[in-house]
Amino acid sequence: MKCKLCNNKAAINLRAYNTSLCKAHFLSFVEKRVTETIRKYKLLNKGDSVLVAVSGGKDSLSLWHILTKFGYAPEGLYIDLGINGYSDRSLKKVLSFAKEVKARLWVVSLKEIFGLGIKELARVLKRPYCSACGTFKRYLMNRISMERNLRVLATGHNLDDEVSSLLGNLLYWKEEYLWKKNVVLEEYEGHLAKKIKPFFLISEREIAAYAFLSGIDYIYEECPYSVGAKTLLYKEILSRIEDQSPGTKLMFLKGYLKRLKAEKEGREQGPVSYCTICNYPSWGQKCVFCSLTERLDIPYKFEYKEYDFSK
Amino acid sequence: MKCKLCNNKAAINLRAYNTSLCKAHFLSFVEKRVTETIRKYKLLNKGDSVLVAVSGGKDSLSLWHILTKFGYAPEGLYIDLGINGYSDRSLKKVLSFAKEVKARLWVVSLKEIFGLGIKELARVLKRPYCSACGTFKRYLMNRISMERNLRVLATGHNLDDEVSSLLGNLLYWKEEYLWKKNVVLEEYEGHLAKKIKPFFLISEREIAAYAFLSGIDYIYEECPYSVGAKTLLYKEILSRIEDQSPGTKLMFLKGYLKRLKAEKEGREQGPVSYCTICNYPSWGQKCVFCSLTERLDIPYKFEYKEYDFSK
Repeated sequence: MKCKLCNNKAAINLRAYNTSLCKAHFLSFVEKRVTETIRKYKLLNKGDSVLVAVSGGKDSLSLWHILTKFGYAPEGLYIDLGINGYSDRSLKKVLSFAKEVKARLWVVSLKEIFGLGIKELARVLKRPYCSACGTFKRYLMNRISMERNLRVLATGHNLDDEVSSLLGNLLYWKEEYLWKKNVVLEEYEGHLAKKIKPFFLISEREIAAYAFLSGIDYIYEECPYSVGAKTLLYKEILSRIEDQSPGTKLMFLKGYLKRLKAEKEGREQGPVSYCTICNYPSWGQKCVFCSLTERLDIPYKFEYKEYDFSK
Repeated sequence: MKCKLCNNKAAINLRAYNTSLCKAHFLSFVEKRVTETIRKYKLLNKGDSVLVAVSGGKDSLSLWHILTKFGYAPEGLYIDLGINGYSDRSLKKVLSFAKEVKARLWVVSLKEIFGLGIKELARVLKRPYCSACGTFKRYLMNRISMERNLRVLATGHNLDDEVSSLLGNLLYWKEEYLWKKNVVLEEYEGHLAKKIKPFFLISEREIAAYAFLSGIDYIYEECPYSVGAKTLLYKEILSRIEDQSPGTKLMFLKGYLKRLKAEKEGREQGPVSYCTICNYPSWGQKCVFCSLTERLDIPYKFEYKEYDFSK
């Protein structure tokens, strides 16, 4: 198998693009797709201050790597979920990566704030782990990007994350979530940071190869609570379809984006209301996070640590 | 495992309904679901003349059986696709079933009309088998129900057929097909028979069990050209999701029907145009069937046979 561009030995075969590429051409292929996504969907402007949410995995560290390489000088945010062993090992990877890219890293810890890790919080709140985790992470990411005045929040969600969640929303026609997925979610000034997903159109396999070939030292372990999660089944299933019909995932997501545009044009945006406690956009008087933490009945102080490797 | 209704030995476990039933209660469960579907979606009125399209498989013969049992006195239509051996074996099953229910059966044969079976027709027309087969079958079913003045055309499409095709339409966002799937497709008087799918909400597994327990003698073989068809992959995949989350298929299809209603309300129906050759509804000047048969350039005479076992 040879690189279609230079005839050197190919490092990867990309069936969805009907091509094979060597290491150097593959790395620039991924980077070009990311920078094109950023341009085409207006994710970032020069001078934007960016916070990257990092878990220590291949996606978020590759994103931090690429954004740094292309001059966006992002800061990192690590949310310590207090998962035995796993969270410490992840933090280690994140810290050493932050040192390497000479960046500033923010670390916020559930245990330090609430005295409980995500597993215990979910149990007390009687919520499935993944659902509680999502709520806490969304809140913390947003709060810290607002407080640090980092107006754009970037996450490493990849094509497989997006199509598997899209499939779940379609199987159960979850209209309340179905039309809310996008490459970019606009800012609500003073309330909500702009959220971007520069890896929206890049597959998990491509990013794993990118991280590996770039020598990025990331954590291979999956979150121990994700075992049996439906999204893993959906990912596997969609990969089987992709195997038989390469390009399906991309067509699925791009077709969705097209449809989304039509959906939005047909619909008026209702007025946005804000949580009376934290001031973030909310459906009801209180947002989900504030309703949950009220039920926790633990007096907590919001704090986080700074590691500045930029100097 | 015991029947939830009578405590006798259960014949089947229905996880989507969280129940187990004995043979007698399972048979009446399926029949009740069919008659309720007929009532709720206004599929049939008393006195409607019905043509059931039968392939010799479990779905279509079970449908013929149930419609006969509930007094609709349907006639059968078998389309002989001219598939070596398979078509003859299927016809045999259909003929002996027709004798058993003492009904009239119409048999139309591609080889007798065009001198070619579906495989050869598809090759000459450079169409994938399943696509050509669909076009010919749709045309023939409609033509014969119009000619025989049997105003309602019933097919054995089951829940699994519907969700797998729905999944395919969603993965590729085939908007032109996506919103055309329904339990009932209304008649265009003089042009198109009313089409109904009474098994829309009944799974393949349920129908297989129904046919088996009712002693219906059907053909087990799948069409030899369906091997590797995408719908088979989709069916398998959706059954895996169903295994993990019973009820998913039903929710997927019912959610779709709800959404379909909203879609239709938002959209005006464009004026219908008719094929200038055969007078059936068509997007262009000529319908797909007439465009294809024109390209065939074979002078053909439309004919079919009658087997009347009703006397």
